[in-house]
Amino acid sequence: MKFETNWRPVRNNGMPLYRQIADYVRAKIESGEWPPGSRIPTERAIAQVFGVNRSTIVQAFAELTADGLIEGKSGSGTIVSAAAAWDNEVPKLPDWEAYVKTGVHRPNQRTIQDINHAEFIPDIIRLGTGEPSPDLYPKAMNRILRQLPPQTDIFGYPEPRGLYPLREEISKHMAGYGVNVSPDSVLIVSGALQALQLIALGLLKNGSSVLTESPSYLQSLQVFQSAGMSMIGLPLNEEGMDARALEHYAGSGKGTLLYTIPSFHNPTGTVMSLNRRQDVYQLCVKYKLPIMEDDAYRDLWLDEPSPPPLKSLDQNGLVLYIGSMSKTLSPGLRIGWVIGPEQVIHRLADVKMQSDYGASTLSQWTVAQFLRQGLYGEHLDHVRKELRARRAYMLQLLDYYLKGVAEWVEPAGGFYIWLRFKRDLSIHALFDAALKDGVLLNPGYLYDKTDQNHLRLSYSYASFEQMKIGIGRLAHSIP
Amino acid sequence: MKFETNWRPVRNNGMPLYRQIADYVRAKIESGEWPPGSRIPTERAIAQVFGVNRSTIVQAFAELTADGLIEGKSGSGTIVSAAAAWDNEVPKLPDWEAYVKTGVHRPNQRTIQDINHAEFIPDIIRLGTGEPSPDLYPKAMNRILRQLPPQTDIFGYPEPRGLYPLREEISKHMAGYGVNVSPDSVLIVSGALQALQLIALGLLKNGSSVLTESPSYLQSLQVFQSAGMSMIGLPLNEEGMDARALEHYAGSGKGTLLYTIPSFHNPTGTVMSLNRRQDVYQLCVKYKLPIMEDDAYRDLWLDEPSPPPLKSLDQNGLVLYIGSMSKTLSPGLRIGWVIGPEQVIHRLADVKMQSDYGASTLSQWTVAQFLRQGLYGEHLDHVRKELRARRAYMLQLLDYYLKGVAEWVEPAGGFYIWLRFKRDLSIHALFDAALKDGVLLNPGYLYDKTDQNHLRLSYSYASFEQMKIGIGRLAHSIP
Ligand SMILES: Cc1ncc(COP(=O)(O)O)c(C=O)c1O
Ligand SMILES: Cc1ncc(COP(=O)(O)O)c(C=O)c1O
Repeated sequence: MKFETNWRPVRNNGMPLYRQIADYVRAKIESGEWPPGSRIPTERAIAQVFGVNRSTIVQAFAELTADGLIEGKSGSGTIVSAAAAWDNEVPKLPDWEAYVKTGVHRPNQRTIQDINHAEFIPDIIRLGTGEPSPDLYPKAMNRILRQLPPQTDIFGYPEPRGLYPLREEISKHMAGYGVNVSPDSVLIVSGALQALQLIALGLLKNGSSVLTESPSYLQSLQVFQSAGMSMIGLPLNEEGMDARALEHYAGSGKGTLLYTIPSFHNPTGTVMSLNRRQDVYQLCVKYKLPIMEDDAYRDLWLDEPSPPPLKSLDQNGLVLYIGSMSKTLSPGLRIGWVIGPEQVIHRLADVKMQSDYGASTLSQWTVAQFLRQGLYGEHLDHVRKELRARRAYMLQLLDYYLKGVAEWVEPAGGFYIWLRFKRDLSIHALFDAALKDGVLLNPGYLYDKTDQNHLRLSYSYASFEQMKIGIGRLAHSIP
Repeated sequence: MKFETNWRPVRNNGMPLYRQIADYVRAKIESGEWPPGSRIPTERAIAQVFGVNRSTIVQAFAELTADGLIEGKSGSGTIVSAAAAWDNEVPKLPDWEAYVKTGVHRPNQRTIQDINHAEFIPDIIRLGTGEPSPDLYPKAMNRILRQLPPQTDIFGYPEPRGLYPLREEISKHMAGYGVNVSPDSVLIVSGALQALQLIALGLLKNGSSVLTESPSYLQSLQVFQSAGMSMIGLPLNEEGMDARALEHYAGSGKGTLLYTIPSFHNPTGTVMSLNRRQDVYQLCVKYKLPIMEDDAYRDLWLDEPSPPPLKSLDQNGLVLYIGSMSKTLSPGLRIGWVIGPEQVIHRLADVKMQSDYGASTLSQWTVAQFLRQGLYGEHLDHVRKELRARRAYMLQLLDYYLKGVAEWVEPAGGFYIWLRFKRDLSIHALFDAALKDGVLLNPGYLYDKTDQNHLRLSYSYASFEQMKIGIGRLAHSIP
């Protein structure tokens, strides 16, 4: 277990630090947060989080041991003693370790867990983060929330497919991209990630296999694997996924579904060409292979719009289209959508009702207002301008600091630069070294387990100042 | 597939109704919403939803058949013809019916799906709905949202456990109930239902069995069954679940987890007595059986507070406590929480990050403000007063209309009256008859498959006027 808390001991408050810390641990034990028999964080971890000397922790632990609350156990560190329980006949109950380990759902990859936590370290420079910088959040948010009607009835449990006004706006928005569907075929989800989860649980069976680009955002997740499915990676070139590889797998009956990020691909930034889109679509028609088109970055073109969605080619109801407001309006709203054949939408809506009864109606209402009032379009213009400047600056920094050791392609939109080191080096070690220096990276191996020489950089999040410091430190950390 | 749409044909707009409807269907087919090979809704269902004569639909279908877009298929109704596809070599693609049927997750029970949809029929009287009436939503919502700071950084992806200020407020709120835990052991979830889903996916393995009251809200869900777990029902009396039955199952090694709703139980309204709480807790200690305590209704006591949570007895870290703002502030916010040993909270937070990256931060911030500004307490006082009046009125109506045929107990809090008919009757037929009359009921068999003579009534949702009409109609529908 990772040790994390916002509590800190206070210096010079009349009580020695070790005593404050012993009291803190005592409270954890008495409240059952650290139950009898459970392992407690190491002295080292505690000392580090609290910013005190290891010896302070040793002293606190000595006191707690003397009180019979904790005990050293050879091989498994320090544990809460059984005697700490009210009911001290019972040695260890329940065995949460076993529960935590046996769940059906796989844990996130270690590095992802580390990143999820490190993101909240104060002053950390996040050079790979896939979210917009807080500067880019829409200024109109406050204006919209002030318009919330009094006594509004939006606050009940939402309809299975989501608030109708939002589905209507999404349907109009998509018409602008050549996707003409009614609000009936739109399902609102709590972010695009949830769409993947619903599809995994609602449409696929154990033993299914998902074809996808390699590398891919999808490979950084466990959503399909946790539901008993496997993944097959297809090579990617500058026009998008390799159609021949697709034909090979689809033709030999491998693959229950194709997942693709055709526009400003995560992590490579690639845009699938119109020709390739047509080829991929026709192959999927030929082999009756449904497509999940994850278009989370479509609205973020910087040079020119990306070719029309695969969904716009689709009169056959082959494509499940996924969109998101996370990369454009704000990830905290947790609003995405799925478009597909009505029967599929109904099934996914039913699974969604069983997962969380729908997305926050406050978020749904807010996004509907953004779209309805034309504020989303205005906001995108602003965000694109800012992202262009950020992209230019990061490319300039890369040129300055990393030209000799790495190469990259200028992305035409989205957030990412897929940096390739010209020689193999330990990306694990680089990740660790940078983190020690206060710089958080996204290693390429998250998106392709075999990758040895890529980083996913993002120009969306860090400030200009942070980019400069961060890339400078990164250059220094390279062995 | 259920046929539902907000579109309606318009009378006297210069185009005959059948033609408008034919155009509607054509658009569904051309957009891929109703793909080639898929079954389309029956003439009867369409006529009903559009409020037109069946013959109008027959005429529309004749036109569509003549155009080669649809075809009657003996045994499986009307389907979209293969020839309707762009690419008319391909007969039927993909076979979404098969996908929809094979997903890992079970569909909701038929009646629940019907209820989820019927709730959005205009003017329907909802006599069993488990949510507060829109009149009860807090008036302070607008005031709070107006306080949203400009350029706030809450709109990023949230921390795995949720926004710290909200966890802090929940920790304080729970201290008021004798549960003393730090914000570190609080996980914010998108409603209590999601907590169940995370526990099912994160802590239990295939083949686990969950002990719970019978009847129970839990029995109306598929969340554990979909993850391969079974349920064992324990009888319930006026003091709570039967401790002897619990000992019997726990003692014979059956049961991986106990799920209980000790306060204002859904659907029976039962409050577990303090003695029973102690007995249940001690039995679980004895058999090392973890407890999920679902306390969604605790704040809604009407006569006197319910006894302290099981969690307040728990120094052993045996209890996972679940709370929710759905029944008090508003279900649309989708905010609930789980409290438990830190290692369990970390595991659940990780699974949550993989499901939807966290709950809406807009909702989280709003709830934190309610708590911090003391508005939640004020709001509860108001809601309790209103619920008391509603409860009294419904009891009065029951006395007037149903005294002869049914019996019930006055609940001490929460939303529900568990109505028992004195003789067996077909609750299925009653449900259908009432629905035809515009009254939506929650049959007892949702909460216990073998139940034959209960309804769950709720005084929380319908207006006084609606309660009167609804219970009157219900009395009429009884055979
Ligand atoms: C391609 C892609 N799809 C989906 C997501 C998840 O987005 P959301 O916040 O909408 O769940 C991301 C975010 O990283 C992404 O890059
Ligand atoms: C006992 C109980 N638990 C959980 C829930 C789900 O509540 P939420 O809206 O917080 O997901 C309900 C709602 O019906 C309930 O009655």
